[in-house]
Amino acid sequence: MSAKKSEKKTKKKGKKQEKKRAKAKKASKKKQSSAPKPVKTGKGATPLEVAQTVVGLLRAGAMKEVEDKWLAPAIESVEGVGASMAWQGKKAVLKKYRDWEADHEIHAMNVEGPWVGATGFAVRYAIDMSQKSTGQRHQMEEIAVYTVKNGKIVREEFHFKTPS
Amino acid sequence: MSAKKSEKKTKKKGKKQEKKRAKAKKASKKKQSSAPKPVKTGKGATPLEVAQTVVGLLRAGAMKEVEDKWLAPAIESVEGVGASMAWQGKKAVLKKYRDWEADHEIHAMNVEGPWVGATGFAVRYAIDMSQKSTGQRHQMEEIAVYTVKNGKIVREEFHFKTPS
Repeated sequence: MSAKKSEKKTKKKGKKQEKKRAKAKKASKKKQSSAPKPVKTGKGATPLEVAQTVVGLLRAGAMKEVEDKWLAPAIESVEGVGASMAWQGKKAVLKKYRDWEADHEIHAMNVEGPWVGATGFAVRYAIDMSQKSTGQRHQMEEIAVYTVKNGKIVREEFHFKTPS
Repeated sequence: MSAKKSEKKTKKKGKKQEKKRAKAKKASKKKQSSAPKPVKTGKGATPLEVAQTVVGLLRAGAMKEVEDKWLAPAIESVEGVGASMAWQGKKAVLKKYRDWEADHEIHAMNVEGPWVGATGFAVRYAIDMSQKSTGQRHQMEEIAVYTVKNGKIVREEFHFKTPS
């Protein structure tokens, strides 16, 4: 076989292999497109572990321990429909809590849950409370959704019950 | 005043203004740090509007209309604790629905909600169902959290009730 012919053959072989690789890549992409991927939340406690510990603390009224141990420094806190605002960072979030507490008195609170997802957990609160500044008493019903990363709560969003 | 002196004065003035600007920037940053920011979800229907429409359709058994009109093409669907997997894209998500339906029979379903947040909404499902492949009947209790962007559902995560 001449050197030229051999070169041609090698080129052809190379092209064939390239086509084969492209085909395999396409097939794997097609297969991947409907195949699910595992969801990870980093190191530390899992969403299930955080959920069970935090809900236990909430039921015991140990909110301080939740704040100290389970809120990430960069936590984002989001208030739902009607407010639609986001507080960024633990300092701002704790200030929001303190401001709220200064103007509200809780008569009774029921904590239901947790429901546990892949990235976090949900808790349902039913709160009987009065607003100090207005003297009005009312019942609030909400679902808080907490996102967990590296064993801490990095986000919370409060969802309010609305007529449907 | 000599040209040199004037130049010096201008430099000094420039530095002073720079310092002033830096101080103002710092103060505004400090003020912002605890001030909340509005949460936006883009154009189209709001989370409240999507929530009310979708929950109405679910109660009417019109799941097909939810799929056709309210799921974004790039929707991500996440199954909660025990599964912890994410399906990407409407094609993969619809395939997941169809696979589930092929192996399950629903005897009764209760839809509670919505609870509406700033970025989406939560719905509570109580489902009495049987798995066809095993013949086992059981009750499932979950909270689905839907994220809305530009008037469509771009993400759903299912949270399962666990002992706490």
